[in-house]
Amino acid sequence: MYLLNGESKQTLAFSDRGFQYGDGLFETIEVKNSTPLFLEQHLHRLQKDCRRLLIPAPDLTLLKKEAYQLAQGSDTAVLKLIITRGTGGRGYRQPDTIHPTRLLSLHPFPQYPADFFHSGITACFCHTRLGLNPALAGIKHLNRLEQVLARAEWNTPDIQEGIMLDFKDHIIEGTMSNIFLVKDQVLYTPLIEQSGVEGIIKNIIISLANKNDIQVIKNKINKEHMLSADELFLTNSIIGIWPIKQLETQSYKIGKLTKTLQSLFLDLKHKESHVC
Amino acid sequence: MYLLNGESKQTLAFSDRGFQYGDGLFETIEVKNSTPLFLEQHLHRLQKDCRRLLIPAPDLTLLKKEAYQLAQGSDTAVLKLIITRGTGGRGYRQPDTIHPTRLLSLHPFPQYPADFFHSGITACFCHTRLGLNPALAGIKHLNRLEQVLARAEWNTPDIQEGIMLDFKDHIIEGTMSNIFLVKDQVLYTPLIEQSGVEGIIKNIIISLANKNDIQVIKNKINKEHMLSADELFLTNSIIGIWPIKQLETQSYKIGKLTKTLQSLFLDLKHKESHVC
Repeated sequence: MYLLNGESKQTLAFSDRGFQYGDGLFETIEVKNSTPLFLEQHLHRLQKDCRRLLIPAPDLTLLKKEAYQLAQGSDTAVLKLIITRGTGGRGYRQPDTIHPTRLLSLHPFPQYPADFFHSGITACFCHTRLGLNPALAGIKHLNRLEQVLARAEWNTPDIQEGIMLDFKDHIIEGTMSNIFLVKDQVLYTPLIEQSGVEGIIKNIIISLANKNDIQVIKNKINKEHMLSADELFLTNSIIGIWPIKQLETQSYKIGKLTKTLQSLFLDLKHKESHVC
Repeated sequence: MYLLNGESKQTLAFSDRGFQYGDGLFETIEVKNSTPLFLEQHLHRLQKDCRRLLIPAPDLTLLKKEAYQLAQGSDTAVLKLIITRGTGGRGYRQPDTIHPTRLLSLHPFPQYPADFFHSGITACFCHTRLGLNPALAGIKHLNRLEQVLARAEWNTPDIQEGIMLDFKDHIIEGTMSNIFLVKDQVLYTPLIEQSGVEGIIKNIIISLANKNDIQVIKNKINKEHMLSADELFLTNSIIGIWPIKQLETQSYKIGKLTKTLQSLFLDLKHKESHVC
């Protein structure tokens, strides 16, 4: 189900700069009980990132209305929202007047085994590195070739996520998730300054930790930190929190702090979807 | 005029990965007298870059046929060719079976003043830097946000091109062109190892220089090298060779070597378009 600039459509103009240059950004949102979860946070990031990419800020009231319209009647689904710089001529120069394209689409919620949440998942390190570019770091933009190449590195259902490093050998994120590690009861997460995406759920977890007297440190993290961590987990808007039980040859237990945060996050989600 | 997988169409499926993730690549080709110029070289690069992005190589005979079909009857035009990983579900994981999308489109040739070729153009340095990523360097892929942001830095017709550096302060390319500089009768061009596009015309110029006993060195080049050069020029498939007459506060003459290469290149183009 697609809503293109407010109308039900199936296709896009070839001249859309989202297609020609990846000139846009997106949000991936969980829908629960007809409610797009954490929509305010997603729209806030979208607005902030549009500003960074010099794309006129979309009408958030309208986007909100359309998001609820599309989510209506869905028990559980994925809502994807794409904003591009709109159509334009050939060439990188942006049009004098920009009419951004907004596309909302509804997708089935992936059938992940409940085990991933409770017992953890298996991850590997990717060979594909994240390029360094502070101008784009943090933004959930449409230039995703690095993630596509990284995700193509494994083709076995035994591995659920790949961990990506930058060219300075820092751990940055998973191909589709942010990373947390626990060491001596302190929560660490990589700095997103030169590459990576500033995840919505990542920031919700940090805020939950702060409210519950769990110390959080954003820092440079390397492979050794990760392999010697007490607990590891991944976050994104669809998986929520997945503990890592196995990373390459290293095993991890699903620790107390991970379980506490999973429980706090589930409470918050229930509240957000009005079913608590 | 658009040809999508062999059919005349106006729009693209939303689910095309070119749109969702910039998951594809493109070629921009000059058409002269119904002939797509240097088509063999463009198709060769396309094939090579598809391999690097793990996209099944397109049928080059078919692409060639369609390119000529679209160019037929055009005195002068721009042919753009886009290949993507085709349609797919939500998520970075590529489909088990990939059916690449091929899109050919014909555009008016831009009305550049003849003066740009003869008397040179004015360029500036861009603040936007090129990210470092050897896995993508050289490829003319659809992830072009860096170029879009760089091209948005100026909005005056007095400047024709912006020069981009990487994060190690190396000069890499223009937003839409490759760079050459001449110092003491030697031709220098930046190494395209960690960022930038391996231009078709760039490599034609290098080959012309080699055949005509002009020494060419691919090297690391910085701002100082550029500002102290004897001659500077830019290349791409549409502009051919544009000398730079002014870069920031520095002026340059249109030197002998630039003029020689312009003349050799024009001869080659005439031969290529069968009008010599």
